[in-house]
Amino acid sequence: MDTLKSDAPAAADTESAILADVLARFETTENPRLRQLLLGLIEHLHAFVREEKLTWGEWEHFMAFLARAAAVTKDGRNEFIALSDSIGVSMQVLAASQPKPPGATIPTLIGPFFIEDAPTYPIGADIAKGVSGQPLYAHGRVVDTAGKPIADAVLNVWQSDDRGLYDVQDDFNPEAMWGRGRIKCDAEGRYAFWSVMPTAYPAPMDAALGDFIMNTTKRFWRPAHLHFAIQTASADPLVTHIFVNGSEHLDCDVAFGVRPALIADFEEHAPGVAPDGRTMNAPYRTLSYDFVLTRAGG
Amino acid sequence: MDTLKSDAPAAADTESAILADVLARFETTENPRLRQLLLGLIEHLHAFVREEKLTWGEWEHFMAFLARAAAVTKDGRNEFIALSDSIGVSMQVLAASQPKPPGATIPTLIGPFFIEDAPTYPIGADIAKGVSGQPLYAHGRVVDTAGKPIADAVLNVWQSDDRGLYDVQDDFNPEAMWGRGRIKCDAEGRYAFWSVMPTAYPAPMDAALGDFIMNTTKRFWRPAHLHFAIQTASADPLVTHIFVNGSEHLDCDVAFGVRPALIADFEEHAPGVAPDGRTMNAPYRTLSYDFVLTRAGG
Repeated sequence: MDTLKSDAPAAADTESAILADVLARFETTENPRLRQLLLGLIEHLHAFVREEKLTWGEWEHFMAFLARAAAVTKDGRNEFIALSDSIGVSMQVLAASQPKPPGATIPTLIGPFFIEDAPTYPIGADIAKGVSGQPLYAHGRVVDTAGKPIADAVLNVWQSDDRGLYDVQDDFNPEAMWGRGRIKCDAEGRYAFWSVMPTAYPAPMDAALGDFIMNTTKRFWRPAHLHFAIQTASADPLVTHIFVNGSEHLDCDVAFGVRPALIADFEEHAPGVAPDGRTMNAPYRTLSYDFVLTRAGG
Repeated sequence: MDTLKSDAPAAADTESAILADVLARFETTENPRLRQLLLGLIEHLHAFVREEKLTWGEWEHFMAFLARAAAVTKDGRNEFIALSDSIGVSMQVLAASQPKPPGATIPTLIGPFFIEDAPTYPIGADIAKGVSGQPLYAHGRVVDTAGKPIADAVLNVWQSDDRGLYDVQDDFNPEAMWGRGRIKCDAEGRYAFWSVMPTAYPAPMDAALGDFIMNTTKRFWRPAHLHFAIQTASADPLVTHIFVNGSEHLDCDVAFGVRPALIADFEEHAPGVAPDGRTMNAPYRTLSYDFVLTRAGG
């Protein structure tokens, strides 16, 4: 850099010179992927500032907003994830980095409530463990894009109850998880379990996310859904939701996690004999859904 | 949105559909400036994710990084400001939103150490209050772009000592601020003060900024500078630094605050009579700098 005192340059030259200085310095980053990501992010952020002529007051406001998000971030709560979800960036990461061919089940968010070591159940077990809600029988197959069963698939499922709460939000007892479990598919890739209907619930609105949403979209609900994470040695893992067709807020998920192909009918049934032979004395629902996984990064 | 179950769409369609959904929802933001800023920021962030095919693991890594920045953010320390500075975004905000015509003094960062109510001194006073460092006599004028004096200008100055510390970092006593003061210019726009030479110092490297810098540029110093904030009713306010020509790290300021026009000679003098008539028994320095302010947003 020229360290001689000189006349102040024209403003546009200063803008370009600042960006050029920053890019040149980050070019020295050793890790090639980190370097590429930073150069890309820096170009976009500087372009945003220049296009909008972001003022110092607006920048200060944004910095204070990030500090408010920081104030509630701790183990088990990351407000920045909630903010990333709320502007669709999290979903865009999945769409851009895990592209799926037509016919394959597309991924959606994992959310904050996944637990690695959920209890293991046999096919057809009741994972609700007595929590309240309308009974639901979910069943289907895990197959590849050629329709071939994935016999080694393990289905993780987790969900809210009819209050819109997850077990981890409710005086959580790790010895007594409910609405959550792992089920190993059979040789034909079949899975089945009993549970209860999930319910829509609001995003945490007590801090930065709440301020942000109420100043912008005013849409803070997640429509009713089941979470699935399918692990298998022979195909690409899949993390997704299945949303309840007809749920409130399907058209305005705060996290932008809904895609049309992930909405399924949860059929209503009068009391009677369920598909697995169980006799139901009250109305119940069934979900029939086949997960279509890709192989080898496809 | 079509809530009917359908075949999974092609991946690129999903990416575009996600962005379109997000933009459509944020179009409902009432405040027009907030709406414009968010639409711009969302477009850039989604473009970044799509161009780089940011992976879920990389996104998780970034979210964890933000949580580490959050953990040290509190009253008086905002790690997100330090990060914004470190990728030149803060300087770009100033350049883009406070453009200056050629000849006007350009702004730079205010930094974390400004205090609103610094002590007031008469022209020519010693603001160092006995803190250690080589004596410095700074003087000059505050004028507009036509060369006309700005008689009502008040100069705020603040600076590090020869250890690279500010008064607020050093068992701070608000009753005994040092290296910091307000000076009202005279009718010809003249200012003058005695102080000590400022010294280069490192950015706080104990947290997220430190990890970031050591994984990327490894440049974490701020070169020696004086801070100035000039307040006046008749011209645009100016916040800037004057950097010491010859200081180490002038070419690699961690905050990208250095612009060539803000580097000035701090002349060395043998013992003798200083410009204001004071007799100096040890070597000392002088800075002569005229601040050129714009009027009415120019």
